[in-house]
Amino acid sequence: MGKKEKQFVEEITPMEVDFPQWYTDVILKTDLVDYSPVKGFMVIKPYGYAIWENIQSYLDAKFKETGHKNCYFPLLIPESLLNKEAEHVEGFAPEVAWVTHGGKNELSERLCVRPTSETIICSMYSKWLKSYRDLPYLYNQWCSVVRWEKSTRPFLRTSEFLWQEGHTLHETYEEAQEETLQMLNIYKEMCENLLAIPVVTGRKSDREKFAGAEATYTIEALMHDGKALQSGTSHFLGQHFTKAFEIQYSDREGNLANPYHTSWGVSTRLIGGLIMVHGDNRGLVLPPRVAPTQVVIVPIAAHKGNVMDKVDEIYKDLKTSIRVEVDDRPNYSPGWKFNEWEMKGVPLRIEIGPKDIENNQVVIFRRDTLEKQQVSMDNLKETIEDLLNNIHNTLFTKALEMREKKTYAVSNLDEFKKILDETPGFIKAMWCGDEKCEEKIKEETGATIRCMPFEQENISDKCLCCDKEAGKMVYFARAY
Amino acid sequence: MGKKEKQFVEEITPMEVDFPQWYTDVILKTDLVDYSPVKGFMVIKPYGYAIWENIQSYLDAKFKETGHKNCYFPLLIPESLLNKEAEHVEGFAPEVAWVTHGGKNELSERLCVRPTSETIICSMYSKWLKSYRDLPYLYNQWCSVVRWEKSTRPFLRTSEFLWQEGHTLHETYEEAQEETLQMLNIYKEMCENLLAIPVVTGRKSDREKFAGAEATYTIEALMHDGKALQSGTSHFLGQHFTKAFEIQYSDREGNLANPYHTSWGVSTRLIGGLIMVHGDNRGLVLPPRVAPTQVVIVPIAAHKGNVMDKVDEIYKDLKTSIRVEVDDRPNYSPGWKFNEWEMKGVPLRIEIGPKDIENNQVVIFRRDTLEKQQVSMDNLKETIEDLLNNIHNTLFTKALEMREKKTYAVSNLDEFKKILDETPGFIKAMWCGDEKCEEKIKEETGATIRCMPFEQENISDKCLCCDKEAGKMVYFARAY
Repeated sequence: MGKKEKQFVEEITPMEVDFPQWYTDVILKTDLVDYSPVKGFMVIKPYGYAIWENIQSYLDAKFKETGHKNCYFPLLIPESLLNKEAEHVEGFAPEVAWVTHGGKNELSERLCVRPTSETIICSMYSKWLKSYRDLPYLYNQWCSVVRWEKSTRPFLRTSEFLWQEGHTLHETYEEAQEETLQMLNIYKEMCENLLAIPVVTGRKSDREKFAGAEATYTIEALMHDGKALQSGTSHFLGQHFTKAFEIQYSDREGNLANPYHTSWGVSTRLIGGLIMVHGDNRGLVLPPRVAPTQVVIVPIAAHKGNVMDKVDEIYKDLKTSIRVEVDDRPNYSPGWKFNEWEMKGVPLRIEIGPKDIENNQVVIFRRDTLEKQQVSMDNLKETIEDLLNNIHNTLFTKALEMREKKTYAVSNLDEFKKILDETPGFIKAMWCGDEKCEEKIKEETGATIRCMPFEQENISDKCLCCDKEAGKMVYFARAY
Repeated sequence: MGKKEKQFVEEITPMEVDFPQWYTDVILKTDLVDYSPVKGFMVIKPYGYAIWENIQSYLDAKFKETGHKNCYFPLLIPESLLNKEAEHVEGFAPEVAWVTHGGKNELSERLCVRPTSETIICSMYSKWLKSYRDLPYLYNQWCSVVRWEKSTRPFLRTSEFLWQEGHTLHETYEEAQEETLQMLNIYKEMCENLLAIPVVTGRKSDREKFAGAEATYTIEALMHDGKALQSGTSHFLGQHFTKAFEIQYSDREGNLANPYHTSWGVSTRLIGGLIMVHGDNRGLVLPPRVAPTQVVIVPIAAHKGNVMDKVDEIYKDLKTSIRVEVDDRPNYSPGWKFNEWEMKGVPLRIEIGPKDIENNQVVIFRRDTLEKQQVSMDNLKETIEDLLNNIHNTLFTKALEMREKKTYAVSNLDEFKKILDETPGFIKAMWCGDEKCEEKIKEETGATIRCMPFEQENISDKCLCCDKEAGKMVYFARAY
């Protein structure tokens, strides 16, 4: 390792030494994000935002394929609307920002900055919906929301974050259930196929569900440090809100009925997951499909002969289907550039120098395996495309193996605590379904039920906590 | 005109009778937008939002082509930051929404919901910028902003609106000037090429410029009712903010310097312009490139023979390059559908019935000219693409002719008032440059200087108002 390389690496605290510091070092030094003058609010810098744009365009296409349309509802919600659904207001009122003045005038009613938009959207749906012929309503919005958080970390928990929120209405219970699970499945597929992150899917316990939901479904991912990250949720809201907001329509028999309701969302939190699943002590490792730059070309001895011509030729060839950049900054050495792009997690680097041109080859460096190889310039685009797919698959497999290694089946609380202290991860255990046991485990260990997974296993016959009969296997973990 | 047609048309107040009511009827009945429970805040419904998405994707591509990157800055701005640039706070403080509480706690400092983001962005730029090597900064964000307005109209003036705001820093005065005008030009080109709206480009008077700008440039469009709509602005901010926020970098000589600064934005207001430039008494007329649905296919006698097969075949052929929909709703007659799609401004309608299939033809209806024609099914996609381009050009030409007809060159104030009262429009007149004349004209007529156009003409030698020597031709109008 040369001096320059060392310098770069030393800027990032090794994750084994201090994982939270490693995370902070990575997000700041790779220019993903910065702290803002407002406590708990982050600035998403261009490199971080470009990742979000890739997530957005992937999901937005899926939403549209499945018949959803985008729209936009007001940022501010009157207090009286927030108060309409009892569980909802209890869950959200303590963490909203209140607007009390417009210009110099005090408002007659306080407005909260939306923490989520069920209430304002339902107030509109109740105005719009007339007949079963109008159903389903399949709407989504991309926006920011504000939740006043006491302790924050960029991407993972901030007082403002970017997200999408889908809000749908359906004629029947079954149709709404189907929608809830369809959207969860789209999230899962996006995590796997775009972010190379394996997720466990399942249902939240009542204690952990969305305020106002009948059932919340979740995708849960496991981070390097063995903590879980709730990465997306889809809520079956039943008729809780549609009754509270008097959303009624005339059904097929001509009677007034309340529709069934879902909502679902993912946020910029996913970027935090991306970092903590794939990153290493050199910095980011970005899966190719979501990487803002998939390939960087670094010319070697750029001043010599036809190097820049060849670089330009390859660049033009690749960029028809690949997000490629040329780093031709004159003031930086190739070694410096290598290190910077490695830290920024660009999946592939191409080096081209005079000798490579002579030999009709280029040098390719893979960020995921840190391997260098020489490949022919012939069919270079196909080679690169194959490599990018290979990197995606390699990262996914590695993440899956990591998760499997850190997933434990446990049948007693002592073992449970030992694992959490020594080798944290997902713990599969049986639960009787009693909230008291859930509470007790949380108090004693800091771990929560992440989900009741769709894929069940029988680990024992008794509840981990109370020894009562238990037919339900759940995933526990400490979580972000 | 049949009964059904009449019914549709009667729902919309004719624009000659009551233009504001016509506008309101059109935006509500075509499902572009709705009023929300929060006064002055609008809900953008899917059909309206889809127009915004088309504007976004067009502009975003242009921004990226010219080297800009997207990012995201906090929604809330501390009062102390807003106060840093004197003119800016004077302009915006009276119209911001104030957050005073987070959850149950009163904040130690009030935060305003961003009315525009110069201040928060400059506070970050001052932290980030180190060297001339980092310049230019070419960043943009898509977001919503809040300005507490007393009287509002959907799209045209609302307390919250969606927009993009670009914020750039440059080494030199010239470079920043160039950027300011480059972005204005992108806006102009977008108006003409996407929205089919001709615009006058020029500089704002000091009275009308952005609070804190050295110079504001604008694109101004003329509506059907002879009122002007400021449709986009680009500000040359000089060093006003970069000095107030102590943004400094070490320049090529190693000295500390303040960079030059621009900002520029367009908003959902453009949709209001789109309606008021092209709409007619039947409703919307959407230029094809921005229309969410460019072509609607209405099957005639859909139950008969192979009608739906043929419809499906044509649909699949067209949709590879055209935004096309099939209206196969069983409960509505073709006549009803025709009227609804006409009201919604879809540029082209294709009717296909058994007889058309026999004759290897379809009937095509143009929304802009209300003409029906029969065209062959052979090469239908090419025919449609040509027609869509033709509609765009026809709409642009019509709008330009309307504007030219309503643009008057005037050299005395009596004539000026007479025109404004009888046949309002743009009035070109000479101005001495004194703000007193500008004020006086505004007080007496309600008209403001829309811009000092880049394309100058010599209408007379004297100021319209004070008879002093005047070398500057300006556009006056009453405006939204």
